[in-house]
Amino acid sequence: VPSEFDFIDWIRKQQRPNSLVQLGVGDDMAILNWPAADLLLIGVDQVLDTVHFDSNIHTPTQIGRKVMNRNLSDCAAMACLPAAAVATLAAPRDFSLAQSQDFYLAMRAAADAFNCPIVGGDTSSWDGKLLATVTILGRSAGVRPITRAGAKPGDGIFVTGPLGGSILGRHLDFTPRIDLGRQLANFATAMIDTSDGISRDITHICKASHVGAILESANIPIHPDAIELSRRDGISPPIHALNDGEDYELLFTSTTQPPVGIRIGRIIPEPGIWIESPDTSRTPLAAKGWLHNIA
Amino acid sequence: VPSEFDFIDWIRKQQRPNSLVQLGVGDDMAILNWPAADLLLIGVDQVLDTVHFDSNIHTPTQIGRKVMNRNLSDCAAMACLPAAAVATLAAPRDFSLAQSQDFYLAMRAAADAFNCPIVGGDTSSWDGKLLATVTILGRSAGVRPITRAGAKPGDGIFVTGPLGGSILGRHLDFTPRIDLGRQLANFATAMIDTSDGISRDITHICKASHVGAILESANIPIHPDAIELSRRDGISPPIHALNDGEDYELLFTSTTQPPVGIRIGRIIPEPGIWIESPDTSRTPLAAKGWLHNIA
Repeated sequence: VPSEFDFIDWIRKQQRPNSLVQLGVGDDMAILNWPAADLLLIGVDQVLDTVHFDSNIHTPTQIGRKVMNRNLSDCAAMACLPAAAVATLAAPRDFSLAQSQDFYLAMRAAADAFNCPIVGGDTSSWDGKLLATVTILGRSAGVRPITRAGAKPGDGIFVTGPLGGSILGRHLDFTPRIDLGRQLANFATAMIDTSDGISRDITHICKASHVGAILESANIPIHPDAIELSRRDGISPPIHALNDGEDYELLFTSTTQPPVGIRIGRIIPEPGIWIESPDTSRTPLAAKGWLHNIA
Repeated sequence: VPSEFDFIDWIRKQQRPNSLVQLGVGDDMAILNWPAADLLLIGVDQVLDTVHFDSNIHTPTQIGRKVMNRNLSDCAAMACLPAAAVATLAAPRDFSLAQSQDFYLAMRAAADAFNCPIVGGDTSSWDGKLLATVTILGRSAGVRPITRAGAKPGDGIFVTGPLGGSILGRHLDFTPRIDLGRQLANFATAMIDTSDGISRDITHICKASHVGAILESANIPIHPDAIELSRRDGISPPIHALNDGEDYELLFTSTTQPPVGIRIGRIIPEPGIWIESPDTSRTPLAAKGWLHNIA
């Protein structure tokens, strides 16, 4: 079994210069020069074997990409720019140095796409299952962060892409909507990434904004994967689009139609989430979003 | 089983105002006002069941305190002030909401001691063992960070307290040496916290500083726990002091005798770590420090 120190020595050699980084991997902490005008955003997300991936099927490359992209997607949701990340890996004892390296290189490739250096981490072997975390720092860089609070009655509800069926593979291989997030910051009154299923994601916005929402069933864009999954499990494509989660699109509210975004509903003053049919009849929508369990 | 959302709702209500925090737990990311003059330091450390604690013996309170204090100890090693933290918890399905709350409150009490708010996190249940991480942000706040690099031939090697036998209990209940770290910043040429055992911790300093070290066996302060443990396992107290780890004292080098710190050796130009007897005979010291495995 390769030691923790071999892996860290190897990681140290993979580092490249970055203007924010004064000291990277290899000390007790990394040292960053934080841009004086920038708000600092911070978030953390973990991925667990049998919950967010299945180590019997998925490769270290897929797992590394997913854990980094989930965090980059949080930056997209806040309309900030990724600035730096740290990561942890807890690996079963038979996880090889080569697998650890594949995992790291996949994280790094995902982060490199947004100029986000990995500046630190912690790694351990154990008699347990694979688990990884990434903590990401984002910088406002001239754009006001968008939170879940701020949706107002009358705002439209928008989503940046089709939904449902991500379990067929997209949940492991998606592009964080960083660029869209920045672009939408001038329009969005509230924003979140679609990780839990929009039936649940919209409740997070409504709760934080003290409003309710009507989703218009005919307008919700359905991903081809939702149709394919429907063929297999008999659950209708719109239900998949509402509840599946892990599309990692942006769900946001806006008073006007922004340059990007499909309008799927509207904000109302009264609490509660409703689904509206084309005949304008309404049904309460239960937040049945996916509670992250792949098994 | 309580849901992730119940726990997060509860955490949200535990938050208290902090001047750095513009938005805390509950959105995709937290938002901080970073002090313009301050360098930002970041580190992450995980604790794993059967590696850093034993969930059959140790309480959620002990585990929460340990994971936060390990990270605060990294701030001490860099001579920075803790600024904010985020945490993750992966818990077995039978881990109760009350246990999660105990875990959180212990983390928070440890962080509160240094005015360090917990501003975000991620929590999941799984068919796996307990694992927690903390990512900590530190700020330079007027003091130059101290790294592992910077030790010079002729420097003395110092430690802030007695070593060995922490496995008897101290590894779960120690005070991070934040105040000492700040105080020593004017003296230390290199610094690290003693987590792996000083035989290994000193190699980290020597490697980063491109120097060697001589530890003087007669001067290494031995903790009463090392003596107690020696009675049980027959391994001599000095060997425990050199190799046990998890004392979470500060090990540092300095050209002069600082106001605190026990002198235990000196830096030499040639690579290599030696242990020197009172008769001045030297033996190469193997880095046998503890590789974090409690089982």
